[in-house]
Amino acid sequence: MTRDGGVFVTFEGGEGVGKSTQIRRLAEALTRRGHDVMITREPGGSPGAEAVRHVLLSGAAQAGGPRFEAILFAAARSDHVEEVIRPALDAGRVVLCDRFMDSSRVYQGVTGDLDPDFIAALERVAINGLRPDCTIIFDMPAEEGLERARARAGIPAGASGELDRFEREDIELHRKRRDGFLDIAAADPERCHVVDARPAPAAVAAMVLSIVEPRLPDPALKAGRGGA
Amino acid sequence: MTRDGGVFVTFEGGEGVGKSTQIRRLAEALTRRGHDVMITREPGGSPGAEAVRHVLLSGAAQAGGPRFEAILFAAARSDHVEEVIRPALDAGRVVLCDRFMDSSRVYQGVTGDLDPDFIAALERVAINGLRPDCTIIFDMPAEEGLERARARAGIPAGASGELDRFEREDIELHRKRRDGFLDIAAADPERCHVVDARPAPAAVAAMVLSIVEPRLPDPALKAGRGGA
Ligand SMILES: Nc1ncnc2c1ncn2[C@@H]1O[C@H](COP(=O)(O)OP(=O)(O)OP(=O)(O)O)[C@@H](O)[C@H]1O
Ligand SMILES: Nc1ncnc2c1ncn2[C@@H]1O[C@H](COP(=O)(O)OP(=O)(O)OP(=O)(O)O)[C@@H](O)[C@H]1O
Ligand SMILES: [Mg+2]
Ligand SMILES: [Mg+2]
Repeated sequence: MTRDGGVFVTFEGGEGVGKSTQIRRLAEALTRRGHDVMITREPGGSPGAEAVRHVLLSGAAQAGGPRFEAILFAAARSDHVEEVIRPALDAGRVVLCDRFMDSSRVYQGVTGDLDPDFIAALERVAINGLRPDCTIIFDMPAEEGLERARARAGIPAGASGELDRFEREDIELHRKRRDGFLDIAAADPERCHVVDARPAPAAVAAMVLSIVEPRLPDPALKAGRGGA
Repeated sequence: MTRDGGVFVTFEGGEGVGKSTQIRRLAEALTRRGHDVMITREPGGSPGAEAVRHVLLSGAAQAGGPRFEAILFAAARSDHVEEVIRPALDAGRVVLCDRFMDSSRVYQGVTGDLDPDFIAALERVAINGLRPDCTIIFDMPAEEGLERARARAGIPAGASGELDRFEREDIELHRKRRDGFLDIAAADPERCHVVDARPAPAAVAAMVLSIVEPRLPDPALKAGRGGA
Protein backbone atom coordinates (compact mmCIF):
# COMPACT_ATOMS: atom_id res chain seq x y z
CA MET A 1 0.00 0.00 0.00
CA THR A 2 2.12 2.90 -1.25
CA ARG A 3 0.90 6.45 -0.90
CA ASP A 4 1.33 9.68 -2.73
CA GLY A 5 2.00 12.75 -0.64
CA GLY A 6 0.60 11.86 2.77
CA VAL A 7 2.92 10.71 5.55
CA PHE A 8 1.75 8.73 8.56
CA VAL A 9 3.72 9.22 11.79
CA THR A 10 2.85 7.46 15.06
CA PHE A 11 4.04 8.18 18.60
CA GLU A 12 4.48 5.36 21.08
CA GLY A 13 5.89 4.62 24.52
CA GLY A 14 4.72 4.16 28.11
CA GLU A 15 2.46 6.49 30.07
CA GLY A 16 3.79 9.96 30.68
CA VAL A 17 6.84 9.73 28.39
CA GLY A 18 5.74 12.91 26.62
CA LYS A 19 3.84 11.70 23.54
CA SER A 20 1.09 14.34 23.68
CA THR A 21 3.54 17.13 24.53
CA GLN A 22 5.78 16.24 21.60
CA ILE A 23 2.98 15.75 19.08
CA ARG A 24 1.73 19.24 19.86
CA ARG A 25 5.22 20.72 19.46
CA LEU A 26 5.90 18.82 16.24
CA ALA A 27 2.56 19.85 14.74
CA GLU A 28 3.38 23.48 15.47
CA ALA A 29 6.88 23.24 14.00
CA LEU A 30 5.68 21.48 10.85
CA THR A 31 2.75 23.83 10.34
CA ARG A 32 5.13 26.79 10.62
CA ARG A 33 7.22 25.18 7.86
CA GLY A 34 4.20 24.96 5.55
CA HIS A 35 3.08 21.36 6.07
CA ASP A 36 -0.60 20.44 6.26
CA VAL A 37 -0.75 18.56 9.58
CA MET A 38 -3.52 16.58 11.26
CA ILE A 39 -3.31 15.28 14.85
CA THR A 40 -5.41 12.29 15.82
CA ARG A 41 -5.68 9.60 18.46
CA GLU A 42 -7.97 6.65 19.05
CA PRO A 43 -10.91 6.25 19.00
CA GLY A 44 -10.67 9.14 16.55
CA GLY A 45 -14.25 10.31 16.55
CA SER A 46 -15.47 8.33 13.53
CA PRO A 47 -19.12 7.21 13.76
CA GLY A 48 -18.34 3.49 13.89
CA ALA A 49 -15.73 4.02 16.57
CA GLU A 50 -18.24 6.00 18.61
CA ALA A 51 -20.76 3.14 18.32
CA VAL A 52 -18.12 0.73 19.60
CA ARG A 53 -17.22 3.08 22.43
CA HIS A 54 -20.85 2.93 23.41
CA VAL A 55 -20.76 -0.89 23.59
CA LEU A 56 -17.51 -0.80 25.55
CA LEU A 57 -18.91 1.68 28.06
CA SER A 58 -22.27 -0.13 28.37
CA GLY A 59 -20.66 -2.99 30.25
CA ALA A 60 -21.78 -5.57 27.66
CA ALA A 61 -18.19 -5.92 26.48
CA GLN A 62 -16.90 -7.08 29.88
CA ALA A 63 -19.42 -9.93 29.76
CA GLY A 64 -17.70 -10.97 26.55
CA GLY A 65 -14.18 -11.27 27.96
CA PRO A 66 -10.80 -9.92 26.80
CA ARG A 67 -10.90 -11.36 23.26
CA PHE A 68 -14.28 -9.87 22.54
CA GLU A 69 -13.12 -6.53 23.90
CA ALA A 70 -9.94 -6.64 21.82
CA ILE A 71 -11.92 -7.34 18.64
CA LEU A 72 -14.20 -4.40 19.39
CA PHE A 73 -11.15 -2.17 19.81
CA ALA A 74 -9.95 -3.46 16.45
CA ALA A 75 -13.30 -2.54 14.90
CA ALA A 76 -12.94 0.99 16.26
CA ARG A 77 -9.37 1.18 14.94
CA SER A 78 -10.45 -0.03 11.52
CA ASP A 79 -13.06 2.69 11.39
CA HIS A 80 -10.55 5.32 12.55
CA VAL A 81 -8.14 4.14 9.85
CA GLU A 82 -10.65 4.04 7.00
CA GLU A 83 -12.71 7.13 7.88
CA VAL A 84 -10.11 9.48 9.35
CA ILE A 85 -6.48 8.52 8.72
CA ARG A 86 -6.60 7.13 5.18
CA PRO A 87 -8.66 10.02 3.75
CA ALA A 88 -6.24 12.54 5.32
CA LEU A 89 -3.25 10.71 3.84
CA ASP A 90 -4.98 10.47 0.47
CA ALA A 91 -5.40 14.26 0.67
CA GLY A 92 -1.63 14.52 1.10
CA ARG A 93 -1.65 15.55 4.77
CA VAL A 94 0.91 14.72 7.45
CA VAL A 95 -0.95 12.63 10.03
CA LEU A 96 0.42 12.49 13.60
CA CYS A 97 -1.26 9.77 15.64
CA ASP A 98 -0.99 9.46 19.43
CA ARG A 99 -0.52 5.70 19.98
CA PHE A 100 -1.36 3.15 17.31
CA MET A 101 -0.73 -0.55 16.64
CA ASP A 102 2.45 -0.83 18.72
CA SER A 103 0.59 0.11 21.88
CA SER A 104 -1.84 -2.78 21.23
CA ARG A 105 1.06 -5.14 20.72
CA VAL A 106 2.60 -4.10 24.00
CA TYR A 107 -0.41 -3.46 26.25
CA GLN A 108 -2.49 -6.42 25.05
CA GLY A 109 0.19 -8.77 23.70
CA VAL A 110 3.12 -8.32 26.08
CA THR A 111 1.47 -7.40 29.37
CA GLY A 112 -2.15 -8.43 28.60
CA ASP A 113 -4.08 -11.70 28.59
CA LEU A 114 -3.96 -12.25 24.84
CA ASP A 115 -1.47 -14.25 22.87
CA PRO A 116 0.74 -12.49 20.32
CA ASP A 117 -0.61 -14.56 17.37
CA PHE A 118 -4.10 -13.36 18.09
CA ILE A 119 -2.88 -9.77 18.41
CA ALA A 120 -1.00 -10.07 15.12
CA ALA A 121 -4.09 -11.35 13.28
CA LEU A 122 -6.17 -8.62 14.83
CA GLU A 123 -3.65 -5.99 13.79
CA ARG A 124 -3.82 -7.12 10.17
CA VAL A 125 -7.58 -6.89 10.29
CA ALA A 126 -7.64 -3.46 11.91
CA ILE A 127 -5.01 -1.57 9.93
CA ASN A 128 -5.61 -3.19 6.54
CA GLY A 129 -2.11 -2.48 5.27
CA LEU A 130 -1.89 1.05 6.62
CA ARG A 131 1.48 0.80 8.37
CA PRO A 132 2.98 3.99 9.76
CA ASP A 133 5.73 5.46 7.61
CA CYS A 134 7.56 6.48 10.74
CA THR A 135 7.13 5.65 14.42
CA ILE A 136 8.71 7.60 17.26
CA ILE A 137 9.17 5.43 20.34
CA PHE A 138 9.84 7.52 23.43
CA ASP A 139 12.07 5.67 25.84
CA MET A 140 12.86 6.18 29.50
CA PRO A 141 13.95 3.92 32.39
CA ALA A 142 10.92 2.54 34.23
CA GLU A 143 11.90 4.25 37.50
CA GLU A 144 12.07 7.69 35.89
CA GLY A 145 8.76 7.11 34.09
CA LEU A 146 7.14 6.28 37.42
CA GLU A 147 8.75 9.38 38.95
CA ARG A 148 7.35 11.57 36.17
CA ALA A 149 3.89 10.04 36.52
CA ARG A 150 4.04 10.75 40.27
CA ALA A 151 5.12 14.34 39.70
CA ARG A 152 2.18 14.83 37.33
CA ALA A 153 -0.17 13.41 39.97
CA GLY A 154 1.36 15.69 42.62
CA ILE A 155 2.82 12.83 44.69
CA PRO A 156 6.22 13.78 46.21
CA ALA A 157 9.15 11.40 45.64
CA GLY A 158 9.59 8.95 48.54
CA ALA A 159 12.14 10.26 51.06
CA SER A 160 13.37 6.83 52.07
CA GLY A 161 14.09 5.72 48.49
CA GLU A 162 12.54 2.35 49.38
CA LEU A 163 9.80 1.00 47.08
CA ASP A 164 6.74 -0.73 48.52
CA ARG A 165 5.25 -3.92 47.02
CA PHE A 166 2.85 -2.12 44.69
CA GLU A 167 5.53 0.19 43.45
CA ARG A 168 7.78 -2.79 42.72
CA GLU A 169 4.95 -4.42 40.73
CA ASP A 170 4.40 -1.17 38.92
CA ILE A 171 8.07 -0.93 38.07
CA GLU A 172 8.05 -4.51 36.82
CA LEU A 173 5.11 -3.78 34.51
CA HIS A 174 6.71 -0.58 33.18
CA ARG A 175 9.91 -2.51 32.56
CA LYS A 176 8.11 -5.21 30.54
CA ARG A 177 6.35 -2.60 28.45
CA ARG A 178 9.54 -0.69 27.86
CA ASP A 179 11.24 -3.90 26.71
CA GLY A 180 8.20 -4.59 24.52
CA PHE A 181 8.55 -1.25 22.73
CA LEU A 182 12.32 -1.68 22.36
CA ASP A 183 11.82 -5.17 20.87
CA ILE A 184 9.42 -3.71 18.30
CA ALA A 185 11.97 -1.03 17.40
CA ALA A 186 14.74 -3.59 17.05
CA ALA A 187 12.60 -5.77 14.78
CA ASP A 188 11.61 -2.89 12.49
CA PRO A 189 14.44 -0.32 12.42
CA GLU A 190 13.33 1.18 9.09
CA ARG A 191 10.08 2.36 10.60
CA CYS A 192 10.89 2.83 14.30
CA HIS A 193 13.08 5.46 15.89
CA VAL A 194 13.80 5.30 19.60
CA VAL A 195 14.07 8.74 21.18
CA ASP A 196 15.42 9.39 24.67
CA ALA A 197 12.47 10.94 26.51
CA ARG A 198 14.52 12.33 29.43
CA PRO A 199 15.94 15.61 28.10
CA ALA A 200 13.95 18.84 28.41
CA PRO A 201 10.89 19.10 26.11
CA ALA A 202 12.61 21.50 23.69
CA ALA A 203 15.57 19.15 23.28
CA VAL A 204 13.33 16.15 22.67
CA ALA A 205 11.30 18.20 20.19
CA ALA A 206 14.43 19.06 18.20
CA MET A 207 15.34 15.39 18.05
CA VAL A 208 11.86 14.40 16.86
CA LEU A 209 11.82 17.12 14.21
CA SER A 210 15.21 15.99 12.93
CA ILE A 211 13.84 12.47 12.45
CA VAL A 212 10.48 13.32 10.93
CA GLU A 213 11.20 16.30 8.68
CA PRO A 214 13.55 14.52 6.22
CA ARG A 215 10.77 12.01 5.61
CA LEU A 216 8.27 14.60 4.46
CA PRO A 217 7.85 15.94 0.92
CA ASP A 218 9.02 19.52 0.44
CA PRO A 219 5.92 21.67 1.12
CA ALA A 220 7.07 24.31 -1.39
CA LEU A 221 7.27 21.72 -4.17
CA LYS A 222 3.88 20.38 -3.18
CA ALA A 223 2.26 23.83 -3.30
CA GLY A 224 3.82 24.25 -6.77
CA ARG A 225 2.15 20.97 -7.86
CA GLY A 226 -1.23 22.30 -6.82
CA GLY A 227 -1.52 20.62 -3.44
CA ALA A 228 -1.79 17.04 -4.75
CA MET B 1 -6.72 -27.24 20.09
CA THR B 2 -7.72 -30.86 20.71
CA ARG B 3 -10.88 -31.70 22.58
CA ASP B 4 -12.11 -34.51 24.74
CA GLY B 5 -15.61 -35.81 24.09
CA GLY B 6 -17.35 -32.87 22.40
CA VAL B 7 -17.79 -32.88 18.64
CA PHE B 8 -18.38 -29.75 16.60
CA VAL B 9 -20.42 -30.15 13.40
CA THR B 10 -21.31 -27.24 11.10
CA PHE B 11 -23.84 -27.04 8.26
CA GLU B 12 -23.17 -24.91 5.23
CA GLY B 13 -24.50 -24.16 1.77
CA GLY B 14 -26.61 -21.58 -0.06
CA GLU B 15 -30.03 -20.28 0.99
CA GLY B 16 -32.79 -22.84 1.12
CA VAL B 17 -30.63 -25.94 0.60
CA GLY B 18 -32.13 -27.50 3.73
CA LYS B 19 -29.65 -26.72 6.51
CA SER B 20 -32.23 -25.95 9.20
CA THR B 21 -34.41 -28.89 8.18
CA GLN B 22 -31.51 -31.32 8.33
CA ILE B 23 -30.08 -30.00 11.60
CA ARG B 24 -33.44 -30.55 13.25
CA ARG B 25 -33.66 -34.09 11.89
CA LEU B 26 -30.10 -34.94 12.85
CA ALA B 27 -30.54 -33.58 16.36
CA GLU B 28 -33.61 -35.80 16.80
CA ALA B 29 -31.85 -38.89 15.45
CA LEU B 30 -28.78 -38.38 17.60
CA THR B 31 -30.76 -37.61 20.73
CA ARG B 32 -32.74 -40.82 20.21
CA ARG B 33 -29.41 -42.66 20.06
CA GLY B 34 -28.37 -41.23 23.41
CA HIS B 35 -26.15 -38.31 22.37
CA ASP B 36 -26.25 -35.02 24.23
CA VAL B 37 -26.93 -32.57 21.39
CA MET B 38 -26.99 -28.76 21.25
CA ILE B 39 -28.22 -26.77 18.23
CA THR B 40 -26.94 -23.25 17.75
CA ARG B 41 -26.61 -20.56 15.10
CA GLU B 42 -25.16 -17.08 15.03
CA PRO B 43 -25.39 -14.67 16.75
CA GLY B 44 -25.98 -17.38 19.36
CA GLY B 45 -27.53 -15.30 22.11
CA SER B 46 -24.37 -14.59 24.12
CA PRO B 47 -24.36 -11.16 25.84
CA GLY B 48 -21.48 -9.75 23.80
CA ALA B 49 -23.08 -10.92 20.57
CA GLU B 50 -26.32 -9.25 21.57
CA ALA B 51 -24.50 -5.98 22.21
CA VAL B 52 -22.96 -6.17 18.76
CA ARG B 53 -26.34 -6.97 17.21
CA HIS B 54 -27.55 -3.76 18.80
CA VAL B 55 -24.80 -1.75 17.11
CA LEU B 56 -25.46 -3.47 13.79
CA LEU B 57 -29.17 -2.72 13.97
CA SER B 58 -28.66 0.89 15.15
CA GLY B 59 -27.36 1.90 11.74
CA ALA B 60 -24.02 3.07 13.16
CA ALA B 61 -22.32 0.09 11.56
CA GLN B 62 -23.32 1.07 8.02
CA ALA B 63 -21.61 4.42 8.55
CA GLY B 64 -18.46 2.40 9.19
CA GLY B 65 -18.48 0.47 5.92
CA PRO B 66 -18.09 -3.24 5.08
CA ARG B 67 -14.82 -3.82 6.92
CA PHE B 68 -16.10 -2.36 10.13
CA GLU B 69 -19.27 -4.42 9.82
CA ALA B 70 -17.26 -7.59 9.16
CA ILE B 71 -15.12 -7.01 12.25
CA LEU B 72 -18.23 -6.53 14.37
CA PHE B 73 -19.59 -9.83 13.04
CA ALA B 74 -16.28 -11.40 14.01
CA ALA B 75 -16.62 -9.99 17.52
CA ALA B 76 -20.08 -11.55 17.79
CA ARG B 77 -18.74 -14.86 16.48
CA SER B 78 -15.87 -14.80 18.94
CA ASP B 79 -18.33 -14.31 21.77
CA HIS B 80 -20.56 -17.10 20.44
CA VAL B 81 -17.53 -19.39 20.24
CA GLU B 82 -16.15 -18.62 23.69
CA GLU B 83 -19.42 -18.32 25.62
CA VAL B 84 -21.62 -20.92 23.92
CA ILE B 85 -19.85 -23.39 21.64
CA ARG B 86 -16.59 -24.03 23.52
CA PRO B 87 -18.27 -24.57 26.91
CA ALA B 88 -20.72 -27.06 25.32
CA LEU B 89 -17.84 -28.94 23.69
CA ASP B 90 -15.88 -28.91 26.94
CA ALA B 91 -18.94 -30.48 28.56
CA GLY B 92 -18.73 -33.27 25.97
CA ARG B 93 -21.80 -32.28 23.96
CA VAL B 94 -22.38 -32.67 20.23
CA VAL B 95 -22.76 -29.13 18.88
CA LEU B 96 -24.63 -28.63 15.59
CA CYS B 97 -24.16 -25.12 14.22
CA ASP B 98 -26.26 -23.61 11.41
CA ARG B 99 -23.64 -21.79 9.26
CA PHE B 100 -20.20 -20.91 10.59
CA MET B 101 -16.87 -19.75 9.16
CA ASP B 102 -17.38 -21.14 5.65
CA SER B 103 -20.41 -18.93 5.10
CA SER B 104 -18.27 -15.89 5.94
CA ARG B 105 -15.62 -17.04 3.51
CA VAL B 106 -18.19 -17.40 0.76
CA TYR B 107 -20.61 -14.55 1.42
CA GLN B 108 -18.03 -11.94 2.38
CA GLY B 109 -14.90 -13.28 0.68
CA VAL B 110 -16.18 -14.75 -2.61
CA THR B 111 -19.25 -12.63 -3.40
CA GLY B 112 -18.66 -9.72 -0.98
CA ASP B 113 -16.55 -6.57 -1.06
CA LEU B 114 -13.77 -7.90 1.14
CA ASP B 115 -10.56 -9.52 0.09
CA PRO B 116 -9.86 -13.14 1.08
CA ASP B 117 -6.72 -12.25 3.09
CA PHE B 118 -8.74 -9.95 5.29
CA ILE B 119 -11.42 -12.63 5.71
CA ALA B 120 -8.76 -15.21 6.61
CA ALA B 121 -7.23 -12.97 9.27
CA LEU B 122 -10.66 -12.20 10.64
CA GLU B 123 -11.52 -15.90 10.77
CA ARG B 124 -8.41 -16.63 12.83
CA VAL B 125 -9.38 -13.89 15.22
CA ALA B 126 -13.00 -14.97 15.55
CA ILE B 127 -12.68 -18.73 15.94
CA ASN B 128 -9.46 -18.81 17.94
CA GLY B 129 -8.54 -22.33 16.85
CA LEU B 130 -12.02 -23.80 17.20
CA ARG B 131 -12.32 -25.47 13.79
CA PRO B 132 -15.33 -27.70 13.17
CA ASP B 133 -14.59 -31.41 13.42
CA CYS B 134 -16.97 -32.04 10.57
CA THR B 135 -18.74 -29.77 8.07
CA ILE B 136 -21.70 -30.81 5.95
CA ILE B 137 -21.91 -28.76 2.77
CA PHE B 138 -25.30 -29.07 1.10
CA ASP B 139 -24.98 -28.80 -2.64
CA MET B 140 -27.50 -28.15 -5.37
CA PRO B 141 -27.40 -26.59 -8.87
CA ALA B 142 -28.03 -22.85 -8.73
CA GLU B 143 -31.21 -23.14 -10.84
CA GLU B 144 -32.79 -25.70 -8.53
CA GLY B 145 -31.82 -23.69 -5.46
CA LEU B 146 -33.55 -20.65 -6.93
CA GLU B 147 -36.59 -22.81 -7.77
CA ARG B 148 -36.79 -24.06 -4.18
CA ALA B 149 -36.45 -20.53 -2.79
CA ARG B 150 -39.30 -19.44 -5.08
CA ALA B 151 -41.49 -22.33 -4.00
CA ARG B 152 -40.91 -21.36 -0.37
CA ALA B 153 -41.90 -17.76 -1.16
CA GLY B 154 -45.03 -18.97 -3.00
CA ILE B 155 -43.86 -17.72 -6.41
CA PRO B 156 -44.90 -20.12 -9.23
CA ALA B 157 -42.19 -21.33 -11.65
CA GLY B 158 -42.05 -19.20 -14.83
CA ALA B 159 -44.19 -20.78 -17.58
CA SER B 160 -42.00 -19.49 -20.39
CA GLY B 161 -38.81 -20.96 -18.94
CA GLU B 162 -37.05 -17.68 -19.87
CA LEU B 163 -35.06 -15.87 -17.14
CA ASP B 164 -35.23 -12.10 -16.83
CA ARG B 165 -32.16 -9.95 -16.14
CA PHE B 166 -32.50 -10.04 -12.35
CA GLU B 167 -33.01 -13.79 -12.37
CA ARG B 168 -29.88 -14.24 -14.46
CA GLU B 169 -27.91 -12.08 -11.98
CA ASP B 170 -29.37 -14.11 -9.14
CA ILE B 171 -28.35 -17.37 -10.82
CA GLU B 172 -24.84 -16.01 -11.39
CA LEU B 173 -24.51 -15.14 -7.69
CA HIS B 174 -25.81 -18.53 -6.58
CA ARG B 175 -23.37 -20.19 -8.95
CA LYS B 176 -20.40 -18.25 -7.53
CA ARG B 177 -21.41 -19.16 -4.00
CA ARG B 178 -21.90 -22.80 -4.88
CA ASP B 179 -18.42 -22.86 -6.45
CA GLY B 180 -17.08 -21.12 -3.33
CA PHE B 181 -18.43 -23.85 -1.06
CA LEU B 182 -17.18 -26.61 -3.38
CA ASP B 183 -13.71 -25.03 -3.44
CA ILE B 184 -13.65 -25.03 0.36
CA ALA B 185 -14.65 -28.70 0.40
CA ALA B 186 -11.97 -29.59 -2.15
CA ALA B 187 -9.30 -27.78 -0.13
CA ASP B 188 -10.24 -29.46 3.14
CA PRO B 189 -11.61 -32.95 2.41
CA GLU B 190 -10.87 -34.26 5.91
CA ARG B 191 -13.32 -31.84 7.44
CA CYS B 192 -15.83 -31.18 4.67
CA HIS B 193 -18.42 -33.53 3.25
CA VAL B 194 -20.47 -32.46 0.26
CA VAL B 195 -24.03 -33.80 0.39
CA ASP B 196 -26.46 -33.72 -2.53
CA ALA B 197 -29.32 -31.56 -1.27
CA ARG B 198 -31.83 -32.61 -3.96
CA PRO B 199 -33.23 -35.94 -2.69
CA ALA B 200 -36.22 -36.01 -0.36
CA PRO B 201 -35.56 -34.79 3.21
CA ALA B 202 -35.54 -38.32 4.66
CA ALA B 203 -32.95 -39.48 2.13
CA VAL B 204 -30.72 -36.47 2.79
CA ALA B 205 -31.10 -37.05 6.53
CA ALA B 206 -29.93 -40.66 6.20
CA MET B 207 -26.85 -39.50 4.28
CA VAL B 208 -26.03 -36.85 6.89
CA LEU B 209 -26.44 -39.32 9.74
CA SER B 210 -24.15 -41.82 7.99
CA ILE B 211 -21.44 -39.15 7.78
CA VAL B 212 -21.75 -37.68 11.27
CA GLU B 213 -22.46 -40.69 13.47
CA PRO B 214 -19.17 -42.55 12.91
CA ARG B 215 -17.38 -39.41 14.09
CA LEU B 216 -19.08 -39.34 17.48
CA PRO B 217 -17.95 -41.17 20.60
CA ASP B 218 -20.16 -44.11 21.59
CA PRO B 219 -22.78 -42.60 23.95
CA ALA B 220 -23.00 -45.87 25.96
CA LEU B 221 -19.25 -45.81 26.62
CA LYS B 222 -19.47 -42.16 27.58
CA ALA B 223 -22.29 -42.78 30.08
CA GLY B 224 -20.17 -45.61 31.53
CA ARG B 225 -17.29 -43.15 31.98
CA GLY B 226 -19.53 -40.87 33.96
CA GLY B 227 -20.28 -38.38 31.23
CA ALA B 228 -16.79 -36.89 30.94
N1 LIG C 1 10.73 16.17 28.33
C1 LIG C 1 10.02 16.28 29.49
N2 LIG C 1 10.65 16.49 30.64
C2 LIG C 1 9.96 16.58 31.79
N3 LIG C 1 8.62 16.48 31.88
C3 LIG C 1 7.95 16.27 30.75
C4 LIG C 1 8.60 16.17 29.49
N4 LIG C 1 7.67 15.93 28.53
C5 LIG C 1 6.49 15.91 29.16
N5 LIG C 1 6.64 16.11 30.48
C6 LIG C 1 5.59 16.14 31.51
O1 LIG C 1 5.28 14.77 31.76
C7 LIG C 1 3.87 14.60 31.88
C8 LIG C 1 3.38 13.64 30.78
O2 LIG C 1 3.54 14.26 29.49
P1 LIG C 1 2.55 13.90 28.30
O3 LIG C 1 1.13 14.06 28.74
O4 LIG C 1 3.01 14.64 27.11
O5 LIG C 1 2.89 12.36 28.16
P2 LIG C 1 2.10 11.23 27.39
O6 LIG C 1 3.13 10.30 26.90
O7 LIG C 1 1.18 11.84 26.39
O8 LIG C 1 1.27 10.60 28.58
P3 LIG C 1 -0.04 9.65 28.47
O9 LIG C 1 0.48 8.29 28.09
O10 LIG C 1 -0.59 9.64 29.86
O11 LIG C 1 -0.95 10.27 27.46
C9 LIG C 1 3.26 15.98 31.76
O12 LIG C 1 3.09 16.50 33.06
C10 LIG C 1 4.30 16.76 31.00
O13 LIG C 1 4.26 18.14 31.27
N1 LIG D 1 -34.77 -32.19 0.69
C1 LIG D 1 -35.68 -31.26 0.42
N2 LIG D 1 -36.45 -31.35 -0.68
C2 LIG D 1 -37.36 -30.41 -0.97
N3 LIG D 1 -37.59 -29.33 -0.20
C3 LIG D 1 -36.84 -29.19 0.90
C4 LIG D 1 -35.85 -30.13 1.26
N4 LIG D 1 -35.25 -29.70 2.41
C5 LIG D 1 -35.84 -28.54 2.74
N5 LIG D 1 -36.79 -28.24 1.84
C6 LIG D 1 -37.65 -27.04 1.84
O1 LIG D 1 -36.84 -25.98 1.32
C7 LIG D 1 -37.03 -24.79 2.08
C8 LIG D 1 -35.71 -24.40 2.75
O2 LIG D 1 -35.35 -25.36 3.75
P1 LIG D 1 -34.53 -24.92 5.04
O3 LIG D 1 -35.16 -23.77 5.72
O4 LIG D 1 -34.23 -26.13 5.83
O5 LIG D 1 -33.20 -24.44 4.30
P2 LIG D 1 -32.00 -23.56 4.89
O6 LIG D 1 -30.78 -24.05 4.18
O7 LIG D 1 -32.00 -23.60 6.37
O8 LIG D 1 -32.41 -22.12 4.38
P3 LIG D 1 -31.86 -20.69 4.92
O9 LIG D 1 -30.50 -20.53 4.29
O10 LIG D 1 -32.84 -19.70 4.34
O11 LIG D 1 -31.86 -20.74 6.42
C9 LIG D 1 -38.11 -25.10 3.09
O12 LIG D 1 -39.37 -24.70 2.54
C10 LIG D 1 -38.03 -26.62 3.24
O13 LIG D 1 -39.27 -27.19 3.62
MG1 LIG E 1 -0.89 11.63 26.10
MG1 LIG F 1 -32.05 -22.05 7.81
